[in-house]
Amino acid sequence: MKIYGDIQSGNCYKIKLLCSLLEIEHEWVHIDIIAGDTSNTEFLEKNPNGKIPLLELGIGKYLSESNAILNYLAAGSELLPTDTFELAKVQQWQFFEQYSHEPYIAVARFIARYLGLPKERKEEYDAKQAGGHKALAVMEQQLSTTPYLAGELLTTADISLYGYTHVAHEGGFDLKEYPSVLAWINRIQKNQHYIGML
Amino acid sequence: MKIYGDIQSGNCYKIKLLCSLLEIEHEWVHIDIIAGDTSNTEFLEKNPNGKIPLLELGIGKYLSESNAILNYLAAGSELLPTDTFELAKVQQWQFFEQYSHEPYIAVARFIARYLGLPKERKEEYDAKQAGGHKALAVMEQQLSTTPYLAGELLTTADISLYGYTHVAHEGGFDLKEYPSVLAWINRIQKNQHYIGML
Ligand SMILES: N[C@@H](CCC(=O)N[C@@H](CS)C(=O)NCC(=O)O)C(=O)O
Ligand SMILES: N[C@@H](CCC(=O)N[C@@H](CS)C(=O)NCC(=O)O)C(=O)O
Repeated sequence: MKIYGDIQSGNCYKIKLLCSLLEIEHEWVHIDIIAGDTSNTEFLEKNPNGKIPLLELGIGKYLSESNAILNYLAAGSELLPTDTFELAKVQQWQFFEQYSHEPYIAVARFIARYLGLPKERKEEYDAKQAGGHKALAVMEQQLSTTPYLAGELLTTADISLYGYTHVAHEGGFDLKEYPSVLAWINRIQKNQHYIGML
Repeated sequence: MKIYGDIQSGNCYKIKLLCSLLEIEHEWVHIDIIAGDTSNTEFLEKNPNGKIPLLELGIGKYLSESNAILNYLAAGSELLPTDTFELAKVQQWQFFEQYSHEPYIAVARFIARYLGLPKERKEEYDAKQAGGHKALAVMEQQLSTTPYLAGELLTTADISLYGYTHVAHEGGFDLKEYPSVLAWINRIQKNQHYIGML
């Protein structure tokens, strides 16, 4: 099993974290987006959408999209509920992540941390703040009533949201406003097999 | 079972189409976003993220996110594979839809069709075109090799992508460039229990 990714990307780190928690052996193939590794013909044959992370399960057998990869790798483990409604709740949080969280928090972080907040992207950066705070407030509300997003237990939904939330300060989001989110971050970091991003 | 939504929204129509295909009885509660129906306290108690569609299964039992709702309602039916890898492929396409398709095609359509392409949003509209075409090209590549996105059979992945793809022309996307996508649209519309958007 090969995983193509860049550990500095939250979407890729999600997979690295899950593999560590579940002790899944794998070969990590480093992909350098800036160097064009995701846009050459060889990579596009593997993933026509030209994105990482990408899971390779055998010749011609690929799976893209970080959250789909998480759920695939976690199938049958304690990180993925089997009850239909609980499983739907996990997916609800994962779609929320891709639509209402990542496009604000991950993009703001990218502009600030990797591009150094250049003048021509300051307006875009500012515009990302409201959406990011809205997403964090939705998480805060849930996490003030249950220890994990889908309820009592750690699931792949938490790993999906943890990816960019725990580095949200790098995108200008002060997590002190969200005490239950901070407590949840600590809870995840206490896991025996936890590994950090870098 | 209640579904809160607006049939003109592709995200809500997905649920309407699935319920028709699977003959699932439900009560449809019309929500008017412009009138503020998603931002009042009563609705925010049901869905703190303030979005439709929303599924109500009983007192205090809600599920949001269109694609999570689809998979919940389709569980156990022929529209959702049970094989772990096939199920992961369905989810791959659904996350692709939310991240690489909807934010371009649905938003361009909204600006053109509902706002009448006002001058101050023309630049944003133009900027959506490249991403939308990229998503359609990724779909075309898959659909030129298999009749449905996840393989030989119709799944919830097709319903997720069908929602905004079949009205993509309203966002300025000419589907004639994508013959396999057009054939797939026809294939879906031939379904015995198919219902259109309006
Ligand atoms: N929805 C995708 C997003 C993946 C994504 O945006 N990956 C970035 C790195 S964090 C990438 O590959 N960008 C290269 C590109 O889009 O050209 C997922 O969750 O896997
Ligand atoms: N990721 C969500 C997106 C839902 C969404 O954006 N719904 C729109 C209507 S199409 C909405 O409720 N907008 C109101 C708002 O965001 O305030 C899903 O797939 O259900």
